[in-house]
Amino acid sequence: MTHAGLAAEMLKAAGAAVGDTISVQRGDEKHTGVLMPRHEFSDEAIVTLKLSSGYNIGIRVTKGCTVSLVSKKEVKDHVRKAMPRGDGKKDVAVISTGGTIASYVDYRTGAVHPAKSAEELIFSVPELMDLCNVRAKVLYSILSENMTVAHWQGLARAVAEELNSGATGVIVPHGTDTMGFTSAALSFMLKNLTGPVVCVGSQRSSDRPSSDATTNLLAATRLCVGSDLGEVVVVMHGEPSDTYCSVHRGTKARKMHSSRRDAFASMNIHPIGRVEGPSVKLNGHYVKRSAGPVEVRDKIDGRVSLQYFYPGFEEDHFDMIASHVKGVVVAGTGLGHVSEPIISSIRKAVKNGVHVVVTTQCLQGSVNLNVYSTGRDMVAAGALPVGDMLPETAYVKLMWAMGQTDDYAEVNKIMLTNIAGELTKGREL
Amino acid sequence: MTHAGLAAEMLKAAGAAVGDTISVQRGDEKHTGVLMPRHEFSDEAIVTLKLSSGYNIGIRVTKGCTVSLVSKKEVKDHVRKAMPRGDGKKDVAVISTGGTIASYVDYRTGAVHPAKSAEELIFSVPELMDLCNVRAKVLYSILSENMTVAHWQGLARAVAEELNSGATGVIVPHGTDTMGFTSAALSFMLKNLTGPVVCVGSQRSSDRPSSDATTNLLAATRLCVGSDLGEVVVVMHGEPSDTYCSVHRGTKARKMHSSRRDAFASMNIHPIGRVEGPSVKLNGHYVKRSAGPVEVRDKIDGRVSLQYFYPGFEEDHFDMIASHVKGVVVAGTGLGHVSEPIISSIRKAVKNGVHVVVTTQCLQGSVNLNVYSTGRDMVAAGALPVGDMLPETAYVKLMWAMGQTDDYAEVNKIMLTNIAGELTKGREL
Repeated sequence: MTHAGLAAEMLKAAGAAVGDTISVQRGDEKHTGVLMPRHEFSDEAIVTLKLSSGYNIGIRVTKGCTVSLVSKKEVKDHVRKAMPRGDGKKDVAVISTGGTIASYVDYRTGAVHPAKSAEELIFSVPELMDLCNVRAKVLYSILSENMTVAHWQGLARAVAEELNSGATGVIVPHGTDTMGFTSAALSFMLKNLTGPVVCVGSQRSSDRPSSDATTNLLAATRLCVGSDLGEVVVVMHGEPSDTYCSVHRGTKARKMHSSRRDAFASMNIHPIGRVEGPSVKLNGHYVKRSAGPVEVRDKIDGRVSLQYFYPGFEEDHFDMIASHVKGVVVAGTGLGHVSEPIISSIRKAVKNGVHVVVTTQCLQGSVNLNVYSTGRDMVAAGALPVGDMLPETAYVKLMWAMGQTDDYAEVNKIMLTNIAGELTKGREL
Repeated sequence: MTHAGLAAEMLKAAGAAVGDTISVQRGDEKHTGVLMPRHEFSDEAIVTLKLSSGYNIGIRVTKGCTVSLVSKKEVKDHVRKAMPRGDGKKDVAVISTGGTIASYVDYRTGAVHPAKSAEELIFSVPELMDLCNVRAKVLYSILSENMTVAHWQGLARAVAEELNSGATGVIVPHGTDTMGFTSAALSFMLKNLTGPVVCVGSQRSSDRPSSDATTNLLAATRLCVGSDLGEVVVVMHGEPSDTYCSVHRGTKARKMHSSRRDAFASMNIHPIGRVEGPSVKLNGHYVKRSAGPVEVRDKIDGRVSLQYFYPGFEEDHFDMIASHVKGVVVAGTGLGHVSEPIISSIRKAVKNGVHVVVTTQCLQGSVNLNVYSTGRDMVAAGALPVGDMLPETAYVKLMWAMGQTDDYAEVNKIMLTNIAGELTKGREL
């Protein structure tokens, strides 16, 4: 949106356009910052400045205000220079996939676009270059709701390539919507990690006040250069303000809020670490960097469905789903239950060679099919309970396990084997 | 399981059977309580006593122990007397549906059975009768994973009947697995409530140490006799220990842990109250008792499917589901998103007269289809975002809305109208 009315007139008189640095004097207060595009929903009399602190401020422009130009905006193309390399710094690879964190604001139109190059992404957070030598690459430029199994496979290969050619860690900027699925997929696909693989996103795009992109990217970088971690993790805000980021194990991370900056939670375990300013702290048990080389096991059989159970869920519906796939992950109620008629459907599906894996839609706690008759009947019908594994992680893992072997019993065995922290022995929480 | 080995010998010598009150002396310690059946998984040398505090204690019986009989068990049939009525006390109806809370332990076999009569249920918590005159009824005796839409309808009618014939409140003992679905269904089906309708469950059956059944039932009763609430709510432990119970709005309650006693959470709002010992405190805004009479609007159209979206979810799968129903509730990622191909499927479904209602699988926070292009395309395709409504509540509500009218636009209008606190204006959390 462009400015209108008095605000537009005063900006025009000052020769100021969106992206320029300007000052606005209103009464005794004077603010200087980069003129932001007008937000679609904001009052046309409001001028928004991005201050040097990174925060935005909205100022209501009235007749008594003075608007003056401080400097014209830099021409963006100039930043596309080669990235500086410093001796003595470690190499960190940044493999961008898209999403809010990899977006930038076009100051001419106000629209948010995916970054066209990794350089654009990195130069928006120049502090990264003080911490490491950045090897940046845009692998995909998609919103994460459009990620597919094939994207996971390509990403796993790209990550392994970077680690095996000497990167001390890999940062994967990613849309937050399906980041937990991707982190789980990478966790199963990558073996013998020689460094951290850090999925990182942001909940607020960089045109909004106090975007979390910078904090999260810096924390991810610090984890790469300052820890001996050899796991796939998600790094996001640990609480709504900017104090620290949490490190979530890739198979235990779930997006649990649609908009908060601390949207991600570790389910059934505590976060495995936190990054607070320059300090990186890892708690308790985690997998350390391996000597390598990183191995990629990216075969996947996509013929799996994830189905939450609910009252009114009918056996015909289950039968229909099961007839189209080779595996069904059921998110049952409570300890993992489904209704009596669905147990018959499970029996039929298993007889037809379909894997039926049972998780809980409570998301927290473990399934246990030994407590009530329903659960015992489910096990007798061939259902496979998988402890405290998240439904979404079980979905990814079942596709992966079916990609590793065609043997029915072997797939079930893999499902019950802890590969990447997805099964917590003796539930932590 | 029966006792074996030394424990069995010593119990036999004392003439003690399961259900009898006995004393066990071990060293300096002496414990007196009711002999419990041996747990399937416990060591055969362990004797478990239920103490008068309600807690169970396990004692390892060794040769130096003394076991003595204090009194033989009461014959259970004797408690099936008429329930005492007291003047000056209010009538509270208890309509039992089944589940762990409505189970009792058969001390002869050690098995957990559903209570055969409401009297059996009530006499296990005799304190209830100090607080009110109990009108008890066993409506169903089923595990809640087997609840269906028809059960909700019968329950709604039974609740209305009790309130309209003078009960000051209705307690609905219910299995916890699908209690959140039932509380949502009752919330939509019952209008002009003259008192609280309290769904209450327990996470630990009464044969286990520190079952939560008593605390939860007492809290439910206190809410009925000690508040001016006119809503459907869920009352369960507010934290793992016995300190207080939380009062969750029926449309906002979700079971968020498979086994903890404080398994239920209010999603996107704070609990609307708490019961702590005899004290009943309601917070902020709630609906007060109406003058009545209670109206039942129990028509439901069950042709609705609830579907969580995930990477790898294919358009064929959506098309298949949509072709069998009149409504699909999508639990999208983040702000409510699905992948591009699914947007085309949504467009087709809507053209065919199928309602497509959008919620978030984050469970917390609101959907917002105005932020990203994906969301705007979904709305253009005819998807209906429903704010911060839980996926499970939206599923129940869509069936109910379709039961109220055949008009497509009218159903959508009902979905966007706050009927029972399911839509929180200006998100609280």
